[in-house]
Amino acid sequence: MISVEFASSYANPAGSPIRELFPYLNRPGMISFAGGYPSPSLFDAEGLQQAAQHAFADTAGSLQYGATEGSPALRQALAQLCAARGIQCDPSHLIVTTGSQQAFDLLVRVYIAPAASVYVETPAYPAAIQALRLAQARIHEVLVDEDGIDVDALQRQLEDAVPSDRPKLLYTVPTFSNPCGTLLTQSRREALVRLALKYEFLIIEDDPYGELAFSTSVPPPIYATGHVMAAADNPVVYLSSLSKTVAPALRVGWMLAPAEILRRCAIAKQTSDLCTSPLAQAVASRYLASSRYAAMVAGARDEYASRMRAMAHALRDELADTLTFFEPKGGMFVWAELARPMDMPRLFQAAVEQGVLYVPGDAFYPYEPRGQGMRLSFATPSTHEIAQGVRRLARALRLCADHRSSASR
Amino acid sequence: MISVEFASSYANPAGSPIRELFPYLNRPGMISFAGGYPSPSLFDAEGLQQAAQHAFADTAGSLQYGATEGSPALRQALAQLCAARGIQCDPSHLIVTTGSQQAFDLLVRVYIAPAASVYVETPAYPAAIQALRLAQARIHEVLVDEDGIDVDALQRQLEDAVPSDRPKLLYTVPTFSNPCGTLLTQSRREALVRLALKYEFLIIEDDPYGELAFSTSVPPPIYATGHVMAAADNPVVYLSSLSKTVAPALRVGWMLAPAEILRRCAIAKQTSDLCTSPLAQAVASRYLASSRYAAMVAGARDEYASRMRAMAHALRDELADTLTFFEPKGGMFVWAELARPMDMPRLFQAAVEQGVLYVPGDAFYPYEPRGQGMRLSFATPSTHEIAQGVRRLARALRLCADHRSSASR
Repeated sequence: MISVEFASSYANPAGSPIRELFPYLNRPGMISFAGGYPSPSLFDAEGLQQAAQHAFADTAGSLQYGATEGSPALRQALAQLCAARGIQCDPSHLIVTTGSQQAFDLLVRVYIAPAASVYVETPAYPAAIQALRLAQARIHEVLVDEDGIDVDALQRQLEDAVPSDRPKLLYTVPTFSNPCGTLLTQSRREALVRLALKYEFLIIEDDPYGELAFSTSVPPPIYATGHVMAAADNPVVYLSSLSKTVAPALRVGWMLAPAEILRRCAIAKQTSDLCTSPLAQAVASRYLASSRYAAMVAGARDEYASRMRAMAHALRDELADTLTFFEPKGGMFVWAELARPMDMPRLFQAAVEQGVLYVPGDAFYPYEPRGQGMRLSFATPSTHEIAQGVRRLARALRLCADHRSSASR
Repeated sequence: MISVEFASSYANPAGSPIRELFPYLNRPGMISFAGGYPSPSLFDAEGLQQAAQHAFADTAGSLQYGATEGSPALRQALAQLCAARGIQCDPSHLIVTTGSQQAFDLLVRVYIAPAASVYVETPAYPAAIQALRLAQARIHEVLVDEDGIDVDALQRQLEDAVPSDRPKLLYTVPTFSNPCGTLLTQSRREALVRLALKYEFLIIEDDPYGELAFSTSVPPPIYATGHVMAAADNPVVYLSSLSKTVAPALRVGWMLAPAEILRRCAIAKQTSDLCTSPLAQAVASRYLASSRYAAMVAGARDEYASRMRAMAHALRDELADTLTFFEPKGGMFVWAELARPMDMPRLFQAAVEQGVLYVPGDAFYPYEPRGQGMRLSFATPSTHEIAQGVRRLARALRLCADHRSSASR
């Protein structure tokens, strides 16, 4: 190949640790707790097909290029979705993005020069870490517990930081986080906004899972709290997506932010993909305008709740002494930590051999992993498969523990 | 708004000069030569709707997340499309992108650190200039004539450049360029590859219009020439798109490049949008698998040829003394230059007042415009509207000339 030097971030880049698991997925009989994929059994294919038919009936609007900011109909529908979540906004306050992944990427482009400082809740969504790493941000970890970001620890971090280490952005999934399933309490949401106002950083609230609450009422998005507390100085940028509620294949997400940020993100989006697929947008807006969305999400909520309970039940039955975890109140993930040290790569291999897949915890840390975690997604397998998968995981853990004790003799 | 500093490229960014024309487009009766949009009358809405129905019949594959590199079926179909253009390739040699705009953006991420040197044919596609500007590249202009890039002038530029000014990339639309409609000759394609091999830069061949040839046989893509001349050292990266031949709304493009480049671009794409809409990909691959594509492109070719002839005819009739231009052999654009100096902003306003829109030439230059050009797209208006629009343009030119001569009295 002709020798042209890559930019330094790309000289020797690591791919996504989750993508590296893909080859294992196709092994016959494999039960996967690995993917962050919504369950295909919940897709409302019929409703989406109807939406597509309606979209084609009005081809003028859906086959041509569209506005970079998104189609007026979809922006209207997404503003209504925001309203149902407790955010009052005008369609002009949001732009449509190619998944919420693109929304985060646009913010990184617009804010992050090499060596810029960012805070990231940890463990965190790997693609967010990767985007920041490739932008050569200095990533600072902010630890979470069952109630989300530990705001007292965060406050100490901010107080102790030299000015150049103060963050431009803090990235968080406050409502049923990936990978931990944590839910940030309302008092912490308020404390977080106070800190953002005091130390002048943006809170990037990524909210793909917020509608997937199992039973508890969920606090409104941090964005809503930020609006109440600071009005025009709201330090929160809100990202969301239809991928976990309607279908990932649409690649439709959105971003709610002040005009000055949206304008720059739209300029970045022009060079990125000109506009999000107008066909996908037309399908999405027509689907949201139909009466099927609410029923579909309610169905997903119930199904995920029952799968989560199946997983929690099986983990308690099989692995109560070996793993610690808490039951998430929504979302798609259980985060389990090993109570005792273990050879994690060996455990992963043993699990694969037993026919069960999960995502090893180190994928969720920007630097060295803390503890010995694993992300177990209950979204895709059936309750029966979940029970079976946990039994396989238990066997893998026993085999590794046996090996360890025999090796230490 | 909370005060967080933007990255320097985004502190005060200029938007797309073409987008700034959008408000004028909606004026009643406006005839637009401005957009680079394909004619909606040519969209095969029925065929695409059938393709969508087939895609939904197999929902498992089209509603879930997909591989970052693109769906196997679409990669296969695009490799066949490449074969028809004279490029023999395997589906694994290309990745699907969210329009060819994203393909270029991924290359910029992967190669361009601030102050990296790039060569761009000038006048050039504005979104390419914008992507390079936002990446803080040092942009060097390479001039074109009717036969595309002037390779002799390029050779002198390369010989004279200090090593740090030698380019990593050269960006060109060799086949029916935007904005000039130039067609790079085969001997220049070969000379360009020789220069790329000697001075070690990549040729980014952007080819959205190649299939829209009016009559002449078109030389094969530079990529094919590069393959013949250099085999594994082929210095050409090939980008293309379905936007100008099938429909922009799919946002489906692709990139053909060596594995080491594709791997890095796929990593960049993970952080950009995870994958191109699998729904749009499913529609695209099923459409390409149908027998309708060839007929559709043949129809577009004929229609654009007749619109181009209508424009050329009208320009000669009305403006032979005022404008110089050549008839493009394909594509969507005529580039016209004023024979005598004129107040270009004033002319644009006069044209708007007369009810005709074009893109002022300065949009296509990274720095100062050379000459007094305008891009006239014949793709969207009917032949009747084209004749009428040129008459309006002639009136605007006369008004400005009269004003000038009366002002100079």
